[in-house]
Amino acid sequence: MPELAYINGRIMPIDDAVVPVEDRGYQFGDAVYEVIASYGGKMFCVKEHFARLDRSMRELNFPKVQIEGISRAANELFGKAKIERAAVYIQISRGVSPRSHAFPGKIPVQVVMTVRKIEEKNPNIRETGISAITIEDIRWGRCDIKTVQLLPNVIAKQKALDAGCYDAIFVSKDGIVREGSSSNLFILSGGKLVTHPLATDILPGITRALILDLCSEKKIPVEERFFDKSELYEAVEVFLTGTITEVLPVVQIDGRTVGNGKVGSAARMLQEGLLGRLKSE
Amino acid sequence: MPELAYINGRIMPIDDAVVPVEDRGYQFGDAVYEVIASYGGKMFCVKEHFARLDRSMRELNFPKVQIEGISRAANELFGKAKIERAAVYIQISRGVSPRSHAFPGKIPVQVVMTVRKIEEKNPNIRETGISAITIEDIRWGRCDIKTVQLLPNVIAKQKALDAGCYDAIFVSKDGIVREGSSSNLFILSGGKLVTHPLATDILPGITRALILDLCSEKKIPVEERFFDKSELYEAVEVFLTGTITEVLPVVQIDGRTVGNGKVGSAARMLQEGLLGRLKSE
Repeated sequence: MPELAYINGRIMPIDDAVVPVEDRGYQFGDAVYEVIASYGGKMFCVKEHFARLDRSMRELNFPKVQIEGISRAANELFGKAKIERAAVYIQISRGVSPRSHAFPGKIPVQVVMTVRKIEEKNPNIRETGISAITIEDIRWGRCDIKTVQLLPNVIAKQKALDAGCYDAIFVSKDGIVREGSSSNLFILSGGKLVTHPLATDILPGITRALILDLCSEKKIPVEERFFDKSELYEAVEVFLTGTITEVLPVVQIDGRTVGNGKVGSAARMLQEGLLGRLKSE
Repeated sequence: MPELAYINGRIMPIDDAVVPVEDRGYQFGDAVYEVIASYGGKMFCVKEHFARLDRSMRELNFPKVQIEGISRAANELFGKAKIERAAVYIQISRGVSPRSHAFPGKIPVQVVMTVRKIEEKNPNIRETGISAITIEDIRWGRCDIKTVQLLPNVIAKQKALDAGCYDAIFVSKDGIVREGSSSNLFILSGGKLVTHPLATDILPGITRALILDLCSEKKIPVEERFFDKSELYEAVEVFLTGTITEVLPVVQIDGRTVGNGKVGSAARMLQEGLLGRLKSE
């Protein structure tokens, strides 16, 4: 089970994979990315991830890229790595050019991928739920684009760990609850599932969309609307959603117990529904 | 005049300088940087730049780093490159580790430097002044830390160029004028120089501090206070300040003429004063 990398058409062990120091991804964070998860040797939601990657590049006026070719390359790389349960990481930067803020002239984008085994750090958390802190959202204004502008996310996650919690939930300065440090957020409130509407403040999560689809199928009422921290605290259930996160129940926030402190039935059902989709795709 | 790079103790041509794809600077923008300018074969404000670099790392809880050693290495690299008028770029990332948001365990930081010749793209602009656009400030909340979270700055600079201007001026959602895309901003208003106070919203510029010092020496009244876009539009003079920027007059903003449309006497005097300091350091 080798862990491999891909750089602009070449495949190699991850430890040999390097990029020039003047890659704009390195000096400006001028790069977009995706993480695709595999289950049982099959990548999941590939089309959706590449569609979002393509959108991210278009939003940032990257040069036109043959996204199908990159998708095929990801598939080839994944095939060679032969890792059943893998995270396939794809990062595309605006290219390599002497450091200058303005877009460079016509140069090729830089395509980098890695395949690594997903290690379940603590399988218990899906049974017990996790604890979280809230943290002020100081991210930039285009969180809908999946870029490597991730330092505030890094800081948030670390603050959560330092507080003895698993993750952090971003809350805007004026009290609107956004999402987790690398996941979207749902609450069960007033008998409905509630999640932040798609906007420039949150990532248009692929798992988020799948959950909305599952809810529609199962006739579970959902509202995409803003909600504040007090509604978060009073929610009957809270859970995070994401490609690696799946549906992850939050049972404690800022030291307060969520609902009855146990994993709720909505989260449980949606996690099962999600895994069902994986098997049937 | 070779353009050289340095990576963790090794010096090489820039084109050979590479970093691992799992450098956290590349995947998270988890890195800080400085740019030092040289004049006549001598680096300027070295102590101030390394003090700020050190602060940036402390603010982000980087592992302790021997900043003096890095400063010596920068000096050695600069000496080898033998470029009279150079930009010495220093970037330090939190290190190389399999991708995971949380801080990695005890691993060394990654120190990367480059030395490149500064090309004056258009020497005329110091005589004629530049035009600028204003743009909404969508940067993250810690612009006082000099990190590579620079994608909004990249976008701003490119928008300015696309509009036929030289640079962009960030203005907060509620109308407060912040700074340029890679420089601080001063205006001459009500007979005083005015600039944004030090806060998490702007970079604590080294040239900004030098200008304040020059003003104090020359008894030019200065106010560090907030001001809005209408005060910017009505200013008698506007100029940007920065390591590479020096004192750069802005004579047109959003298509409106600043003052009489010519480079003002305050900007001219402070540019001369700045160059005088360089010669005497």
